[in-house]
Amino acid sequence: MNISLDIQNLTTLYASGELSPRELCEALQKQADRVDNPKIWIHRLSPEELEPYLLRLESEDPASQPLYGIPFAIKDNIDLAGVPTTAACAAYAYTPEKSSPVVEKLIQAGAIPIGKTNLDQFATGLVGVRSPYGVPRNPLAPDRVPGGSSSGSAVALSESLVSFSLGTDTAGSGRVPAAFNKLWGVKPSKGRLSTSGVVPACRTLDCVSIFALNAADSQAVLKVAEGFDSSDAYSLPTADQSLPVSKKIGVPKPEQLMFFGDAGYEAAWSLALLELESKGWEIETIDFEPFLQAARLLYEGPWVSERTAVLQDFLASNADDFFPATHSIIAGGLNNTACDAFSASYKLAALRRESESVWQGLAAIVTPTAGGFPTLADLAADPIGPNSQLGYYTNFMNLLDLCAVATPAGETESGLPFGITWIAPRDTDKALIEIADKGPRALEADNDTLPILLFGAHMQGLPLNSQILELGGKFVAQVDTAAQYKMIYLPEPAPHRPGIIRVGEGGSSIAAEEWRLPKASLGALLSSIQQPLGLGQIELSDGRKVHGFLCEAAVAQSAQDISATGGWRGFLAQA
Amino acid sequence: MNISLDIQNLTTLYASGELSPRELCEALQKQADRVDNPKIWIHRLSPEELEPYLLRLESEDPASQPLYGIPFAIKDNIDLAGVPTTAACAAYAYTPEKSSPVVEKLIQAGAIPIGKTNLDQFATGLVGVRSPYGVPRNPLAPDRVPGGSSSGSAVALSESLVSFSLGTDTAGSGRVPAAFNKLWGVKPSKGRLSTSGVVPACRTLDCVSIFALNAADSQAVLKVAEGFDSSDAYSLPTADQSLPVSKKIGVPKPEQLMFFGDAGYEAAWSLALLELESKGWEIETIDFEPFLQAARLLYEGPWVSERTAVLQDFLASNADDFFPATHSIIAGGLNNTACDAFSASYKLAALRRESESVWQGLAAIVTPTAGGFPTLADLAADPIGPNSQLGYYTNFMNLLDLCAVATPAGETESGLPFGITWIAPRDTDKALIEIADKGPRALEADNDTLPILLFGAHMQGLPLNSQILELGGKFVAQVDTAAQYKMIYLPEPAPHRPGIIRVGEGGSSIAAEEWRLPKASLGALLSSIQQPLGLGQIELSDGRKVHGFLCEAAVAQSAQDISATGGWRGFLAQA
Repeated sequence: MNISLDIQNLTTLYASGELSPRELCEALQKQADRVDNPKIWIHRLSPEELEPYLLRLESEDPASQPLYGIPFAIKDNIDLAGVPTTAACAAYAYTPEKSSPVVEKLIQAGAIPIGKTNLDQFATGLVGVRSPYGVPRNPLAPDRVPGGSSSGSAVALSESLVSFSLGTDTAGSGRVPAAFNKLWGVKPSKGRLSTSGVVPACRTLDCVSIFALNAADSQAVLKVAEGFDSSDAYSLPTADQSLPVSKKIGVPKPEQLMFFGDAGYEAAWSLALLELESKGWEIETIDFEPFLQAARLLYEGPWVSERTAVLQDFLASNADDFFPATHSIIAGGLNNTACDAFSASYKLAALRRESESVWQGLAAIVTPTAGGFPTLADLAADPIGPNSQLGYYTNFMNLLDLCAVATPAGETESGLPFGITWIAPRDTDKALIEIADKGPRALEADNDTLPILLFGAHMQGLPLNSQILELGGKFVAQVDTAAQYKMIYLPEPAPHRPGIIRVGEGGSSIAAEEWRLPKASLGALLSSIQQPLGLGQIELSDGRKVHGFLCEAAVAQSAQDISATGGWRGFLAQA
Repeated sequence: MNISLDIQNLTTLYASGELSPRELCEALQKQADRVDNPKIWIHRLSPEELEPYLLRLESEDPASQPLYGIPFAIKDNIDLAGVPTTAACAAYAYTPEKSSPVVEKLIQAGAIPIGKTNLDQFATGLVGVRSPYGVPRNPLAPDRVPGGSSSGSAVALSESLVSFSLGTDTAGSGRVPAAFNKLWGVKPSKGRLSTSGVVPACRTLDCVSIFALNAADSQAVLKVAEGFDSSDAYSLPTADQSLPVSKKIGVPKPEQLMFFGDAGYEAAWSLALLELESKGWEIETIDFEPFLQAARLLYEGPWVSERTAVLQDFLASNADDFFPATHSIIAGGLNNTACDAFSASYKLAALRRESESVWQGLAAIVTPTAGGFPTLADLAADPIGPNSQLGYYTNFMNLLDLCAVATPAGETESGLPFGITWIAPRDTDKALIEIADKGPRALEADNDTLPILLFGAHMQGLPLNSQILELGGKFVAQVDTAAQYKMIYLPEPAPHRPGIIRVGEGGSSIAAEEWRLPKASLGALLSSIQQPLGLGQIELSDGRKVHGFLCEAAVAQSAQDISATGGWRGFLAQA
């Protein structure tokens, strides 16, 4: 196909009338024929099945919907109304009447579902070869695995058959295939995208994930797909937290990195770090041990019993319908006791606590997405081992309640795709995509705090400073006002304090402290401010205007002018 | 004893010098001899053990510590340095070197540990009779159970041997004994009080709880005892949420109430509801089913395996050291599978979601604390049944992540103590104690918004009003300033607007609009305010001082005085 499928480009083409959704769908069909990679799909929508979506779009204004005419693929463990959901197990299949809420939101926003994609059966695996529906061919490395479990969704996008796709990500299924297909893979915070209408893997950990071509598309799809869903017991209200304003990113200590003998990936990681530094990041090695221990808990511990619990009846009646590797894993979950489950949850809680201190001062943590890139032959020889290795950098993510963005990060010397993963605490999804795309400069705009000038007893070491600290204030710098102010002495209410009044030309420059306060604290601060003081803009000697403490001029006539002391500390030193 | 042990009274006596901690401890020893209820204690501190605490207090100023000289009891599953922790199982006992963080905070605040109290072994039970150390006698009903598992802590307080006491509350152990002893029983939000140095029952549910004589003492102890503890994997940052401003409290539908044949309790509940109505509450019946289903999950489901998991090794080696009923319960947890545990957690998540909608429009939910008051004979005849019934109104609390306050609520016709429990979502602990004490008027103080006076283009119907609405502003009233201000005309920046400046005597009264803004929006409001405007207190004609828009006097000389128009709308009408 000659046109780029990124959302911005399609939106432009639709707006100009150069392209219609119908023309695009026809072109996509030709592209599908051309690439001849049929194992991508478990069900590709027929022209008849596509027709209602196209008809609906033809009655709408392209500008009215954020994803107007954007084609997408759906992992076949997520419901699309009227099309079977198989989870790659034909005997398990059912045909839902309703689309899952995430799919429904995307369709309502104008997106066109192209088909249901192949996966490691029951989303159990990170390789993409554990499916009775065959193996989607990795177009960038035909002798290697496509990555899983969301194999078909990733390959559909890397074959230019859709603009984005939905995966699921319990242990890494939305990130490993991104790395192996040069895609962005967004593993949102748990509970951010509804998991209603999704075949459960581990219900306490499952996330719907997004494969996209770039950061902007990731954000655009995330914005439509996210949102609280009261029908999903694990859905949570959507929140957008910012990341710490820091140029530092944490990476595991060298001895905590594992490449499983893949020298190409090891070298690609070193290059990726250089590239990060060239974008302005400072690399700090961190102790990755609590993350690695949590990762091991996922499959060595009792969480596999979650997969078993949701399939227990089906497992009893349909053992032969499972893919062999999948059956052995899921049936293994029958052996764990409730005591095992609770003991492991205590261990996890301790690891979560331990991992919290690692974030101090970091904008994010970055790791390889996968430590190696197994061949199809590797998996044929050992269906379990290489799969387990692929979870090394991914398995802890949902256990530790983090969000993650996998991004392409160059290639190995032999031209194989390599990817890195950006990791941050939950609810920072959008900020994380932003910095993964734009580097540390994306953090410079701080919208959660605002600067406040302090002139008196609120300054460092003085009696009211604790109030500012309790409100979450952070000291920034010593500054001076423009020479347009006077400072008067206010003996009451105790403690005594200065009053700053603008007088214009001929005034004095007064020393101040610039702090930053969380915007959410301003209400509490204002509540504590009494006549004759208030908050208003004050001009600084550097020309900036910053909000700070001002005094009503009405009290000036009866008050002592102490401007000559240059500031409250100067006054205190003389008094 | 002749003096009341409530904290306020002791603090007053200490401040006046009428009493010393040493004198109080001697008096408490006499009181203990007098009441002769020895099964309260597993270990009562000897005079020698008390001495270091008294010596330390004697070197301190009574006013310097919030709990100076306040005697308290500690349930014997919580560590006190140097004294054995038994959990009512002698073979399990160990002597900790450090006090638990909660005990340590209380001691640092001046409180005096009097002893370690008896409990249902391993905090498993709601009756207080499941202990090899005997049964603390219920002083208000000697033929009835003391309530458990925090039996000794409750009885120590109802026998006036301490001012407050610590319990633990996993399933109701801090509330049932409060009801049976006419006490306040605070079950804080999970993670609010550290559970480090506490013998675990169900680690994902355990809370340290507080027994106190009244609401003020509950708040005072809570304030000292709470706080994040990084050594406790289940500790959470302390947050104080407000409750909805509503006169409505929810109570279970009549058919969802259970009194287990206790007509006295059934009648006491009806009287308690009348009493609540007389305080100004409106009673609304709610569907209590999701709460009741969650309660049943606790013991019918796999959570008992938490108790088993933490004692698994001890159970294997020391089966004979268990109290018989305790052994049968805890050993029963060996039979659950991990699949059971995960399946039950899914059921719980669904119930939690279902229960969320019940809170709509309610300040809180209120239930009986216990549906009946079993006799000692009842328990001798059936050690399990009456105990299970006591969890009917309590077992769901930690599973659903709620906080609760049990309060005394009159007596039955035959003079037995009856109690009710106030319930609200997590992090509302302090607000909940407040309304349980003061009724709906405690909600009238609105701490989430603050009043703001608007004078110009931000007022209703004028160009900048949408900014105020977007910030969540709500119109309150038309008001006038005191006759101490002048209004000047500010043509720039557009739109033109007034500036209000205090001039004192001889000024004008200016018309304004009073609004309420969410405190969290103040930061955004201030960011939008430019020189020469700011925010400060303004005196109204009714004498109140309310924050609003003020103008710097520096611009007054070059500006038109428009005070005579009486307000911006008056000016606009003339212009």
